[in-house]
Amino acid sequence: MREIGIGLVGGGYMGKAHAVAYSAVGAVFDTRLRPRLEMVAASSPDSAERYRAAYGFRRAAPDWRTLVDDAAVEAVVIAAPQATHRVIAEAAFALGKPVFCEKPLGASIADAEAMCAAAAASGAVNMIGFNYVRTPATQFARRLIAEGAIGEVTWFRGEHSEDFLADPDTPASWRTSGAPNGTLGDLAPHMINAAQALLGPVQSVMADIETVHAARGGTAVTNDDQAHMLCRFSGGAMGHMYFSRVATGRKMGYIYEVSGTHGALRFNQEDQNSLWLYRAEGPQAERGFRQILTGPEHPDYAAFCQGPGHGTGYQDQIIIEARDFLEAVADGVSRWPDFTAGLDVARVIDAARQSHAHGRWQPVASHQGA
Amino acid sequence: MREIGIGLVGGGYMGKAHAVAYSAVGAVFDTRLRPRLEMVAASSPDSAERYRAAYGFRRAAPDWRTLVDDAAVEAVVIAAPQATHRVIAEAAFALGKPVFCEKPLGASIADAEAMCAAAAASGAVNMIGFNYVRTPATQFARRLIAEGAIGEVTWFRGEHSEDFLADPDTPASWRTSGAPNGTLGDLAPHMINAAQALLGPVQSVMADIETVHAARGGTAVTNDDQAHMLCRFSGGAMGHMYFSRVATGRKMGYIYEVSGTHGALRFNQEDQNSLWLYRAEGPQAERGFRQILTGPEHPDYAAFCQGPGHGTGYQDQIIIEARDFLEAVADGVSRWPDFTAGLDVARVIDAARQSHAHGRWQPVASHQGA
Amino acid sequence: MREIGIGLVGGGYMGKAHAVAYSAVGAVFDTRLRPRLEMVAASSPDSAERYRAAYGFRRAAPDWRTLVDDAAVEAVVIAAPQATHRVIAEAAFALGKPVFCEKPLGASIADAEAMCAAAAASGAVNMIGFNYVRTPATQFARRLIAEGAIGEVTWFRGEHSEDFLADPDTPASWRTSGAPNGTLGDLAPHMINAAQALLGPVQSVMADIETVHAARGGTAVTNDDQAHMLCRFSGGAMGHMYFSRVATGRKMGYIYEVSGTHGALRFNQEDQNSLWLYRAEGPQAERGFRQILTGPEHPDYAAFCQGPGHGTGYQDQIIIEARDFLEAVADGVSRWPDFTAGLDVARVIDAARQSHAHGRWQPVASHQGA
Amino acid sequence: MREIGIGLVGGGYMGKAHAVAYSAVGAVFDTRLRPRLEMVAASSPDSAERYRAAYGFRRAAPDWRTLVDDAAVEAVVIAAPQATHRVIAEAAFALGKPVFCEKPLGASIADAEAMCAAAAASGAVNMIGFNYVRTPATQFARRLIAEGAIGEVTWFRGEHSEDFLADPDTPASWRTSGAPNGTLGDLAPHMINAAQALLGPVQSVMADIETVHAARGGTAVTNDDQAHMLCRFSGGAMGHMYFSRVATGRKMGYIYEVSGTHGALRFNQEDQNSLWLYRAEGPQAERGFRQILTGPEHPDYAAFCQGPGHGTGYQDQIIIEARDFLEAVADGVSRWPDFTAGLDVARVIDAARQSHAHGRWQPVASHQGA
Repeated sequence: MREIGIGLVGGGYMGKAHAVAYSAVGAVFDTRLRPRLEMVAASSPDSAERYRAAYGFRRAAPDWRTLVDDAAVEAVVIAAPQATHRVIAEAAFALGKPVFCEKPLGASIADAEAMCAAAAASGAVNMIGFNYVRTPATQFARRLIAEGAIGEVTWFRGEHSEDFLADPDTPASWRTSGAPNGTLGDLAPHMINAAQALLGPVQSVMADIETVHAARGGTAVTNDDQAHMLCRFSGGAMGHMYFSRVATGRKMGYIYEVSGTHGALRFNQEDQNSLWLYRAEGPQAERGFRQILTGPEHPDYAAFCQGPGHGTGYQDQIIIEARDFLEAVADGVSRWPDFTAGLDVARVIDAARQSHAHGRWQPVASHQGA
Repeated sequence: MREIGIGLVGGGYMGKAHAVAYSAVGAVFDTRLRPRLEMVAASSPDSAERYRAAYGFRRAAPDWRTLVDDAAVEAVVIAAPQATHRVIAEAAFALGKPVFCEKPLGASIADAEAMCAAAAASGAVNMIGFNYVRTPATQFARRLIAEGAIGEVTWFRGEHSEDFLADPDTPASWRTSGAPNGTLGDLAPHMINAAQALLGPVQSVMADIETVHAARGGTAVTNDDQAHMLCRFSGGAMGHMYFSRVATGRKMGYIYEVSGTHGALRFNQEDQNSLWLYRAEGPQAERGFRQILTGPEHPDYAAFCQGPGHGTGYQDQIIIEARDFLEAVADGVSRWPDFTAGLDVARVIDAARQSHAHGRWQPVASHQGA
Repeated sequence: MREIGIGLVGGGYMGKAHAVAYSAVGAVFDTRLRPRLEMVAASSPDSAERYRAAYGFRRAAPDWRTLVDDAAVEAVVIAAPQATHRVIAEAAFALGKPVFCEKPLGASIADAEAMCAAAAASGAVNMIGFNYVRTPATQFARRLIAEGAIGEVTWFRGEHSEDFLADPDTPASWRTSGAPNGTLGDLAPHMINAAQALLGPVQSVMADIETVHAARGGTAVTNDDQAHMLCRFSGGAMGHMYFSRVATGRKMGYIYEVSGTHGALRFNQEDQNSLWLYRAEGPQAERGFRQILTGPEHPDYAAFCQGPGHGTGYQDQIIIEARDFLEAVADGVSRWPDFTAGLDVARVIDAARQSHAHGRWQPVASHQGA
Repeated sequence: MREIGIGLVGGGYMGKAHAVAYSAVGAVFDTRLRPRLEMVAASSPDSAERYRAAYGFRRAAPDWRTLVDDAAVEAVVIAAPQATHRVIAEAAFALGKPVFCEKPLGASIADAEAMCAAAAASGAVNMIGFNYVRTPATQFARRLIAEGAIGEVTWFRGEHSEDFLADPDTPASWRTSGAPNGTLGDLAPHMINAAQALLGPVQSVMADIETVHAARGGTAVTNDDQAHMLCRFSGGAMGHMYFSRVATGRKMGYIYEVSGTHGALRFNQEDQNSLWLYRAEGPQAERGFRQILTGPEHPDYAAFCQGPGHGTGYQDQIIIEARDFLEAVADGVSRWPDFTAGLDVARVIDAARQSHAHGRWQPVASHQGA
């Protein structure tokens, strides 16, 4: 067991989640590398100092560049605004330091491509923050599908719907301008990643994108409120994905349904400790979707609790993610989802925008890993 | 209160449902017209006689034409194969007799148009069998939306999914050939009707249609297993509809979700006595989807039971339908959904087929009533 | 197929349910005996005439005795107030006529015993109206338990909770006086019957009974609002039953949960088309309660609909009940639940009252059939 | 912000949970006192060393007494076997050190009383580990009831059911002997505490206790598998509580239902992020239980995530608990649930045992805090 100095860029929503995760992960998972909360950077020296004190970092950095350059910072976690992801990652890779980057990979497809190239050139370990595929339930869903539990997959429905802008009277904000902050840029990546994780590459899409409320309080809204698309997967399945920030009543509607020739799966992140499985087996009269409560039999659950049905939560996903990153660094080998998985997602989003612009099916640029 | 002689064409699945409905409807609703089960026709004189005895009709007809022509038959209920809907309806209308026709209106868009024209020319009362919009829950959903309970509607998701052909080893049958027997022809009409009932006309669609299992037991399958489409409604809302007969685990997945600016609704026919309502009202900390159990406060429930939560079932929808038809005949005025509502549905299906064929958005021919 | 003349005493809540059931049952089940709605009696000649017209009976009787004595009345259905059950049944039995009696069997344990004796003396077919055990779901639950699907039963929880008197401001009425109208008299019988149907005889009980609101609008309430009891079943299982008319939010809380050594069952009448089954089989990671939607594979469902998940409702239970009564009459042999099943229930209620009065466990008088 | 040295006795199931909690709590809640994982003791020096390395403590103690006596250990967390709770707590109190003790307070009512006396004599801060009342949902439920949201409470149903010994073939173990390891000793405390937290003191109980499987693999089972009791609360409400380790299919059935004159609440720990609320308000036709997903509006949620519906898990409860303990130490004032709350629970269990032994209602010894 040895220590590794963690440098965190950004201390807001996701920054805090990572700070907590690196505080707890060693005790939870008995990792080979034990994180030392070495340094935190933020939008100003003052806020960095505030985060340092709150989260228990040793030092605050005046800016991200100082942090990346600091010798005691041995791995960089990026939880800063999307527009900064690329430059920070490139600086860290130039020094050969491992990088964990929050989703989306960058602010544009060009960013994403450049970041993958930089990662490849450096050979440093890299990972992207698609935390939701790490719940025990969704990890188990992946395994079930891979093992053929539901047969050949014929249909996928995915959704990421929330309602934080459902009220037309909610004023304009940073959220209501800039493509990366729109629904397709901000919410879609998680579910597209899940779709790829569960079914493999998306081959082509036919999308419709909408700004439901064109203005808020007199200010124009310049990005999308909801979007959806017909999909065809490389494996042959048909599917649909929907993304919304105006889905009144939905709080964390990260929902998927997968039908196969011999079974089906259903999941809703709002009840993240249940996975619903239907197996076309046994007497017809006894068939039905069963509610599997996650427990020690499911991936990564036992580290949090030995009792089934006791449940993991949002923060635990980030802890699992931190474990994966630390283990990847210990091995010197990236773990999925790495930066190329982020690029795969960006390419689907790019195809959706083109499809909508031209009113026709759009193939998704290859390659896709998963 | 006076009697009316009912002639039923077809005694299978839906024929039986109507026979039971006309036996019970008077006692349930104390209708002005009391049905007399006068005559039943079927595919052969023998089966007609069998149905007569089983359901308690007075007479069996050797064929549907004899039934339509019989003076004691004062109203005709068509529950025969789709290909016969048009000719039977036209014959009844020629005699000025009211016609209730099972969905879909006919085997093609041309049939549907001709049947509407014949209905208009005769002036006789007509109605189409979209029974599912008649549950107390869905009637109440319509009312809530119309009253503005969820604000302006921004999103609709509809689904009619079953799994009776999900098993690839299920052999070919009459269901696996002929467009009217495919998923789009057979299952889609109910949900398209619901979409129109709840949101109004569908303006344009972008569809994808698929035969998942191209052959069954060596026999080619010539119609579709699943289909879905992006929609835009005339009222401005965006939506998606999915239809499937291969949705493993779904038994009666007539499901819809409607989001509005101030609330949302969810419904699943598999639990037809619950309507889920979210109102963006009151303290944030107390908001949530509430499960409204149908009861005497909801449309047409009290006739079946005075106790809330006691529940109505499939057969009760057909009884409500029979009540509507009898009351329409008593009034001499058709009630929604009449034949034009059937044509509205057929036009959406037709647009979906064209959209899929050409890979582009397809406008839906007007007019649409609802 | 031959006709049988039905005489119905009472045309209110349950009277109407039976009138509808006897109108529809022949078409639904193709019964050997076809009911003729011969005569209806009620609290006055006027109301009898109103019911006659509404439900389609041939004749109205000025009083129940005329009805019972009428030669064309070949079977008597009692849906009159509880205090009249005994005298009507005894009169019918004296003439050797089959009797169907709504629950509870009579207004007291003495009534129940006398009615069983009269039934036995006459040899006539008899049946009691515990309709809820006749849903396809609960019939299937009985079969599963009997077949050992959940192993040896170790625990039962039953509940019949509604909220029609939950509001303290609801005024006093006929419901708030008289033991038979209290919760234990009125709501408990259904769930006690279910407990016996599923697990067999109740051996002893320890009860607590309460009038939550001692007065309503200045009028004293003289019967119970809620009651519950610890139970021991003859088969060895431990259990609990709860009954309430003040369970705010519950509309039809006829709920049971049964645990066994190898599985478990859960049911809630508010979603009467679902039975939840857990089987302690297969990999731990895939175990869970499965939601079985009723369908043609389950008892008595197919007569109402060939499609699974389409659902039956409250009225359909009464139709199944009518089928059982007609078939029993055709066979000349009573079917469960007959009058002795009603007495079994009355004995449990009587034991509960004694237990509460003395603050101790009370054995339940034998015998119990089920 | 200053540090406090934590000494943890026990490193198993709950020991690990506390180790993780004290690692993370500062970053989550920005506590005034920042825990330093100073020392861990266990059943042997070897296991203590193993826990030290795994959880990141500075030092391992050869035994609990060394730990309690160590000057750098400023607060003691007891997660050792129940039989040791008392002696460890007394030793710590003798030195004036704050003590957090896992439930139950001790192995017997005498232990619990002695521990309360020792706590009182020392004046040191003390707390007991009833973690489940700390979920955001249950904290919110307490607040709703206290604010009168559901009116006057009339009924409580509580349950703590799991199935880890449901299989009769599971062999005997430490769990199957000794009253404190039985269901009443081990599982009941959590739900009894919840009942007291939500409704106030339990006044009297009438219990039934059972060892379902008298032997396992030839070894006698000497404690209970399931137990339940009728209750009366001091506030007047009637209730029932059930506890089981043989409830097949239940994984974490910490379930409660509370009915009041104007509303009701339902909760199941298996879906710990939902609280179901019914308010007897607004139009009858729109009433129903609503599923409130926990979010930043609910107690202690926002520290874990700013997004509603994203969910907290089991480990997060322990972190909230650690925050409460640290803040209590910082204030020098115990927070509920302190040791007296543990004694309140022990007294209910003691009354249940006496009630069962004598077959009669048993008053619960006062006082009860909550």
